[in-house]
Amino acid sequence: MKNIAVLGSTGSIGTQTLEVLDRFPDRFRVTGLAAGTSLQKLATQVQRYRPQVVSIGQADNIPYFRSLIPPDVKVVSGVQGMSEIARMTEVDTVVTSITGTLGLLPTVEAINAGKNIALANKETLVAAGETVVTLARQKGVRILPVDSEHSAIFQCLNGERTSRISKLILTASGGPFRDRTRSQLRSVTVAQTLKHPNWDMGRKITVDSATMMNKGLEVIEARWLFDVELQDIEVLIHPQSIVHSMVEFADGSVIAQMGLPDMKVPIQYALTYPDRWENGFPRLNLAEVGQLSFEKPRPEVFPCLGLAYEAGRQGGTMPAVMNAANEKAVEMFLDGQIGFLDIPLLIEKVMANHTPVHSPGLDDILASDIWAREEAESAAGKIIKTSRTI
Amino acid sequence: MKNIAVLGSTGSIGTQTLEVLDRFPDRFRVTGLAAGTSLQKLATQVQRYRPQVVSIGQADNIPYFRSLIPPDVKVVSGVQGMSEIARMTEVDTVVTSITGTLGLLPTVEAINAGKNIALANKETLVAAGETVVTLARQKGVRILPVDSEHSAIFQCLNGERTSRISKLILTASGGPFRDRTRSQLRSVTVAQTLKHPNWDMGRKITVDSATMMNKGLEVIEARWLFDVELQDIEVLIHPQSIVHSMVEFADGSVIAQMGLPDMKVPIQYALTYPDRWENGFPRLNLAEVGQLSFEKPRPEVFPCLGLAYEAGRQGGTMPAVMNAANEKAVEMFLDGQIGFLDIPLLIEKVMANHTPVHSPGLDDILASDIWAREEAESAAGKIIKTSRTI
Repeated sequence: MKNIAVLGSTGSIGTQTLEVLDRFPDRFRVTGLAAGTSLQKLATQVQRYRPQVVSIGQADNIPYFRSLIPPDVKVVSGVQGMSEIARMTEVDTVVTSITGTLGLLPTVEAINAGKNIALANKETLVAAGETVVTLARQKGVRILPVDSEHSAIFQCLNGERTSRISKLILTASGGPFRDRTRSQLRSVTVAQTLKHPNWDMGRKITVDSATMMNKGLEVIEARWLFDVELQDIEVLIHPQSIVHSMVEFADGSVIAQMGLPDMKVPIQYALTYPDRWENGFPRLNLAEVGQLSFEKPRPEVFPCLGLAYEAGRQGGTMPAVMNAANEKAVEMFLDGQIGFLDIPLLIEKVMANHTPVHSPGLDDILASDIWAREEAESAAGKIIKTSRTI
Repeated sequence: MKNIAVLGSTGSIGTQTLEVLDRFPDRFRVTGLAAGTSLQKLATQVQRYRPQVVSIGQADNIPYFRSLIPPDVKVVSGVQGMSEIARMTEVDTVVTSITGTLGLLPTVEAINAGKNIALANKETLVAAGETVVTLARQKGVRILPVDSEHSAIFQCLNGERTSRISKLILTASGGPFRDRTRSQLRSVTVAQTLKHPNWDMGRKITVDSATMMNKGLEVIEARWLFDVELQDIEVLIHPQSIVHSMVEFADGSVIAQMGLPDMKVPIQYALTYPDRWENGFPRLNLAEVGQLSFEKPRPEVFPCLGLAYEAGRQGGTMPAVMNAANEKAVEMFLDGQIGFLDIPLLIEKVMANHTPVHSPGLDDILASDIWAREEAESAAGKIIKTSRTI
């Protein structure tokens, strides 16, 4: 029996993680759950899975939340609450499916406590890749990727020596605006942006898919996860999202991982690795799919990808700043405060005003994150003013 | 320094093997060479690679062949000669790139002598799979596949447990007649049959590709090489020959190996496994390829595939008989004695007249092989007679 803690259990990856656990009730037990604001949904999960400890976003809501759940479950809150769950003696694997920088500290706590990490919070590696990977190596902790692309690469590297990697090829669906011109992107709405062609995901990551920042974050994540230089990581547009990513080796052989676009498969693999369990999920039938297509990305139309490579190249606190500026920009886009094309514009402005701290500590990273959000907000104010005066 | 013996060195795989060895002159030495009738070509190879021993097809030709090569090279002949090379103390890996049943005995000798086998002679496993695989297991010998499909599967299984295989998916280009109807196949010529769309191979295997018997032989080969039941091996038409084959695992994840259609990559992998060496061969660029397509095979148009599955299901000496009947039929087709559609017809007739011996010894297998060739010849006589009287 494996004891699992799910941080971010009410989100898209969190609920799919619980669906995977549902398939194997004799093999997994839910020991801890954490969510931010979806308290009703979290209470239903608590009643069903009976974790020992549960964490909610705000301490103020604890009395109300207690009234929704059985009295023997311990309730904690905030980042401290999540960290407490991450450290629990009983927990074997922590699934980090919180969105945003919020996931960083609990992940570090889990690694410090020697827990296996099923990593679905890509911001952890984007903002603090070097620190987190070094810590994991010291603690002998394996970081198992949940992102479909990184799970694919992880599977392609099975039994291979990473020194024989020639390049990693991350596939990208291209999102809902793959075929659009730059001028067509000027007027896209939030609703259009949230319609992803293949994957049903949370709002933040769906916007990131449309801007291609998601792929940029994944490039940096892959850089740390697999210890490969940025110039050896390529992005390839593949609209059908069947080939989830590939590795080209020194001898020219390419290994690819494929499947239907279903996050439950990589989630399960992160929980059962190195084993694979029969699950009854729908299977890929390539004769039915018929065609797989591939094309080069268009960085001139989707500048976020280039910004991410640039942040990765500069290193230090720059990826954390780029990531935080993007989080803020996406938030403002979803609130209708800025347009789609303002997202890369804002990130670029914030990055231009930042001098990266090299070999940063977690405190430097968190400080840069806060600075970047404020900077993004003030830069947005200027953008809005400019567009009003025109 | 690895010492390599190449049996069948003047054929397509043999010459490509030597091209691979040419890339790494400090890491490989050619210790033995063997060929059948291309004596001029073999002599040139002997002068270049200076093996200790060389084997030719017919003993009668030894005096003439000696006059073509340096005097310090030992010359032997026939199956016995190949077997002598396969057993040589100095040899580390034997590349078995002889076409046909002729390759069986030298392969067995090499396994008995504990040599690594780079297997390019698929008839060895088709005719005598159970015997050969059991022997290799006893001797602790690894059979490394050279066929691009089997090399692909071997690479996909790297680091995985074979007990977790859900199915093997062998891709097939579909050959030059992929889109034809059965009635269009009636009149195809030898020249049309020898024009393979993607691969430049020997004549026998090119005809086998056009009839799809090649894929049938590969299914049986895969069955023994990877210890997977026939019903868990699928064939998928993939005209571009970029995905060389795939494995679907228990959890629904599919791992595929890809590359340009270049036999030198799987040959090299069989010689360097588990390592991979930089080689400067042209690389796959999927954005340039653009599209990969997949479709179901059409067994009603290409009955050879079904005949191979049937022979595999019946087991015992039946695959040897099917294989020998096919070799004979292809020979007669290439000689203009029978038509393209007569090939499966002949094989079916020969199989219908054979009662398989179960758990056969090598002698049973060789006897069945000889019987099947004679039977095919006499069945062909009847076909020709029938078609003349109509």
